[in-house]
Amino acid sequence: MHRYRSHTCAALRKSDVGSTVRISGWVHRVRDHGGVLFIDLRDHYGITQVVADPDSPAFKLAETVRGEWVIRIDGLVKARTDDTVNKNMPTGEIELYAQEIEVLSAAKELPLPVFGEPDYPEDVRLKYRFLDLRRETLHRNIVKRTQVISSMRRHMGEVGFTEYTTPILTASSPEGARDFLVPSRIHPGTFYALPQAPQQYKQLLMVAGFDRYFQIAPCFRDEDPRADRLPGEFYQLDLEMSFVTQEDVWNTMGPLMTQVFEEFAEGKPVTKEWPRIPYDVAIRKYGSDKPDLRNPIVMEAVTEHFAGSGFKVFANMIASNPKVEVWAIPAKTGGSRAFCDRMNAWAQSQGQPGLGYIFWRKEGEKLEGAGPLAKNIGEERTDAIRTQLGLDDGDACFFVAGDPSKFYKFAGEARTRAGEELNLVDRDRFELCWIVDFPFFEWSEEEKKVDFAHNPFSMPQGGLEALQNQDPLTIKAFQYDAVCNGFEIASGSIRNQSPETMVAAFEKVGLSQTDVEERFGGLYRAFQYGAPPHGGAAFGIDRIVMLLVGAKNLREISLFPMNQQAQDLLMGAPSAATPTQLRELAIRPIPPVKKD
Amino acid sequence: MHRYRSHTCAALRKSDVGSTVRISGWVHRVRDHGGVLFIDLRDHYGITQVVADPDSPAFKLAETVRGEWVIRIDGLVKARTDDTVNKNMPTGEIELYAQEIEVLSAAKELPLPVFGEPDYPEDVRLKYRFLDLRRETLHRNIVKRTQVISSMRRHMGEVGFTEYTTPILTASSPEGARDFLVPSRIHPGTFYALPQAPQQYKQLLMVAGFDRYFQIAPCFRDEDPRADRLPGEFYQLDLEMSFVTQEDVWNTMGPLMTQVFEEFAEGKPVTKEWPRIPYDVAIRKYGSDKPDLRNPIVMEAVTEHFAGSGFKVFANMIASNPKVEVWAIPAKTGGSRAFCDRMNAWAQSQGQPGLGYIFWRKEGEKLEGAGPLAKNIGEERTDAIRTQLGLDDGDACFFVAGDPSKFYKFAGEARTRAGEELNLVDRDRFELCWIVDFPFFEWSEEEKKVDFAHNPFSMPQGGLEALQNQDPLTIKAFQYDAVCNGFEIASGSIRNQSPETMVAAFEKVGLSQTDVEERFGGLYRAFQYGAPPHGGAAFGIDRIVMLLVGAKNLREISLFPMNQQAQDLLMGAPSAATPTQLRELAIRPIPPVKKD
Repeated sequence: MHRYRSHTCAALRKSDVGSTVRISGWVHRVRDHGGVLFIDLRDHYGITQVVADPDSPAFKLAETVRGEWVIRIDGLVKARTDDTVNKNMPTGEIELYAQEIEVLSAAKELPLPVFGEPDYPEDVRLKYRFLDLRRETLHRNIVKRTQVISSMRRHMGEVGFTEYTTPILTASSPEGARDFLVPSRIHPGTFYALPQAPQQYKQLLMVAGFDRYFQIAPCFRDEDPRADRLPGEFYQLDLEMSFVTQEDVWNTMGPLMTQVFEEFAEGKPVTKEWPRIPYDVAIRKYGSDKPDLRNPIVMEAVTEHFAGSGFKVFANMIASNPKVEVWAIPAKTGGSRAFCDRMNAWAQSQGQPGLGYIFWRKEGEKLEGAGPLAKNIGEERTDAIRTQLGLDDGDACFFVAGDPSKFYKFAGEARTRAGEELNLVDRDRFELCWIVDFPFFEWSEEEKKVDFAHNPFSMPQGGLEALQNQDPLTIKAFQYDAVCNGFEIASGSIRNQSPETMVAAFEKVGLSQTDVEERFGGLYRAFQYGAPPHGGAAFGIDRIVMLLVGAKNLREISLFPMNQQAQDLLMGAPSAATPTQLRELAIRPIPPVKKD
Repeated sequence: MHRYRSHTCAALRKSDVGSTVRISGWVHRVRDHGGVLFIDLRDHYGITQVVADPDSPAFKLAETVRGEWVIRIDGLVKARTDDTVNKNMPTGEIELYAQEIEVLSAAKELPLPVFGEPDYPEDVRLKYRFLDLRRETLHRNIVKRTQVISSMRRHMGEVGFTEYTTPILTASSPEGARDFLVPSRIHPGTFYALPQAPQQYKQLLMVAGFDRYFQIAPCFRDEDPRADRLPGEFYQLDLEMSFVTQEDVWNTMGPLMTQVFEEFAEGKPVTKEWPRIPYDVAIRKYGSDKPDLRNPIVMEAVTEHFAGSGFKVFANMIASNPKVEVWAIPAKTGGSRAFCDRMNAWAQSQGQPGLGYIFWRKEGEKLEGAGPLAKNIGEERTDAIRTQLGLDDGDACFFVAGDPSKFYKFAGEARTRAGEELNLVDRDRFELCWIVDFPFFEWSEEEKKVDFAHNPFSMPQGGLEALQNQDPLTIKAFQYDAVCNGFEIASGSIRNQSPETMVAAFEKVGLSQTDVEERFGGLYRAFQYGAPPHGGAAFGIDRIVMLLVGAKNLREISLFPMNQQAQDLLMGAPSAATPTQLRELAIRPIPPVKKD
């Protein structure tokens, strides 16, 4: 027989009854039932119930084992009696009568329990991550994460992509977030950087003539800890294609990600045909470029119904500034004064003056718009609004007025709030879409100049001509996001592979050809030697896994995460370097300046 | 029709004749045949021959295109005439008559040619890596590399392994090679380290209850450049299994790697049943723990035949020191004075006093041993040696005498040299084996103390008892290598998962329990909370790919390698940090000290 096991802890079935077998694993639980010991033995695969009765030669040792000890058990497989069969366990029809036990590894008293899902301090969990990972949920989440990634790999291969690995020790990229730096020992005073994304390398791969690249790519950004991002590294499904338009990227990746989601959705519906929503439309309809399409609320402009109306606040704003609009947030089933007042109070808590509303109710046979706004604008306008939005008895509508570029975010939050409060959001589905036609530039209020809105390497719609002749703030990019249930899960674009267009784009944000050559020399040089049209995207794996397993916290889907102070409590990183290391790297830590 | 292509450059066949199609790609070659232009258009998939005759509306533009321009061509597929069919090309039965050409990206004059396999300076190749990668061989090698890795992943999945990703920003490990360090911005004066291997994490995964781990793992060692190792990062197929003996690792990974090799061996034979050769035997038979088993020469001790013989040099050595042995290197077909003298001269060039030999030839009907040694020891002993080694007319044998621990390396080199010079090595096969039972400790002449011979985390054979009662230099470890054609392709072991045994092992090399706690706290702590017996290995992916594609240089199988000075000439790394970066990281480069 094998030294440690003839079967895993998930393998034994009724058909094994009568066999002598060997299993090994962790003591999940020990119970004493009237002198007979029941040990649940656990391994990666499952749990088997072991019985040690006082007649067994293994009984004496069985009495000494404790939770999380690793033991080997030889025993006889017996059928459980009908009333003790456990239909919820794959091994629930049998139990193992222990004949011999060997302790492979004892355990000290545990700093945190493994059995159940206890609430325990984060720092203890992280320091003893090897124990926390034994918890059923976390173990399952981590395994699911590996399966999601494996499924992505499989599907990418099926549609002709090849996985290429790009360097991790590379050059600092001055665009984007802060780099992690790695001092060079051989070239003192200089540094490598860890890649924020393999953006330049994947584009170089296309220029080198490889056609469909992907990579489960580690990415590194030295950002201040945030609730939705762990410090240090994160993973992207990074991809790039040559000789494609943006439609090719959407037509390839949409159906593929639908397949991946469906595999792990446990029967929940997943969008098959991803809507393609222009950025401007997303902002108008949902107040966000990351709309949660499970929320059925769609905003509409109702400016005309307030222009010249008796509600002077809105009417005067509209009259005085052509940019002003009034947006309506229709809220089906929200038609009670209590709910509308709650929304109003919430808006005030968000720093808004309030949230105007109308709600509709039947007065006898008559459908009546209620609330101060309805009174001010009168019955006809109130009903025109109701008709435009398709509202009825028991429904409400909220209104936001002003310059949409200033209020759209708040309007989007109000839409989200109304949808959630009224339970209009169907939580058991995955709604996916593309947000397309992002603006190429934006106005930086801070620097008082035009800046790139997103990826500076994207191709502007209209190309060089648009850059030369068009107001930069009206230029769109071949740039798109993928969104699921209100979260951005991918970002991508068709790239600007023309050296002239690249320089023209950077000139708009105040950089010269020399700057481009200095900062993006590899890419800029490459584009001068035959660069194919190309484009791609990067999908955020952590976010996708969180959505699929329903985790709220990144630490519930990460194997060995750092804490929010960017420390690895398990391995003890970061830590002081030795004098030899510092000398070899020719660097010296600067002691902190004491502040008075 | 699609914006860029209806077909790839490898897709068109005789069945497409008559179709109007669109292809895009790089201009591989332009030839002018009596006014008719022939353009070979190349993409990732293949090459299509395009014809532009002077009547074509595309002719005028076709005349302007140059090598490596990226163009789109619309045209009519025509069958080639019988005498112009090229059977070596998948598209060799057709050619495309150009009707329209669009230049998608022109190319400046090339700094290195892409057509053919020219010999070109390394620094130009690396700076313009995107051009070098367009070369047929390099392109094919890189694609094969991705296929080898993908095959490893597939096979690992098939035998129940799951791919887990371990952190890249982690703690410095004081054992092994030099770490790359990453300064922490949030904790000034402290550093992360990039992992030299995920050794501790994979063991923690086993302790956490995951059963069969693997990872295509990036590893980082800040070592001085060597011919056989690129600076910076390299990749391992890293794996670990719980509840296993070393036989389980061999029985799992041997057949699996045979499958991987067979997939890419292009019909060359691959070892199916890997021999398991104890380290001591490998040293005696092959003079190396990385024996090339394609070389049929097997060394044997022939000490007895020289003890008390007329060859006084050897006889006296044997008499004066019981450690002295004489090893024979039998060399079939090497039986000429010219060859034996060449070997002797080579030995002297290696700093040896010379290389004794005997060769056998027929004198009439009589088989005679020739050379000075044969004369000295006489006919009977000469023939006893010949019989022991199974040699015959036309064969030779070389002899090395002394303390085997001092001469075995040279003996192994002589074996290699003889095998290669005599063409005894069958180059067209992959000979794989396990070298097992490595010594756990070795004597460090430098530090005058016992040190770990290989992996300090391996389980010593005999466990705690052996550590307590045995001469440490006689203790073997459950430690093994995989070897292919004379190269180490993997290393692995059963791990020491007992905290007491771990401390006892480190005490032998002069470290205390406190040292172990400080240096390997994560692992040492984990072993105290229920650690399963576990073991694994790590296969060197770069070496395996080099063997499979027959590459001699790591740069021929790496996508974006650094040069031997650890510089990325394409991206310009490493480079100076900005003052802001240095301030944020609270480090200061130390200016180099001028040496007089």
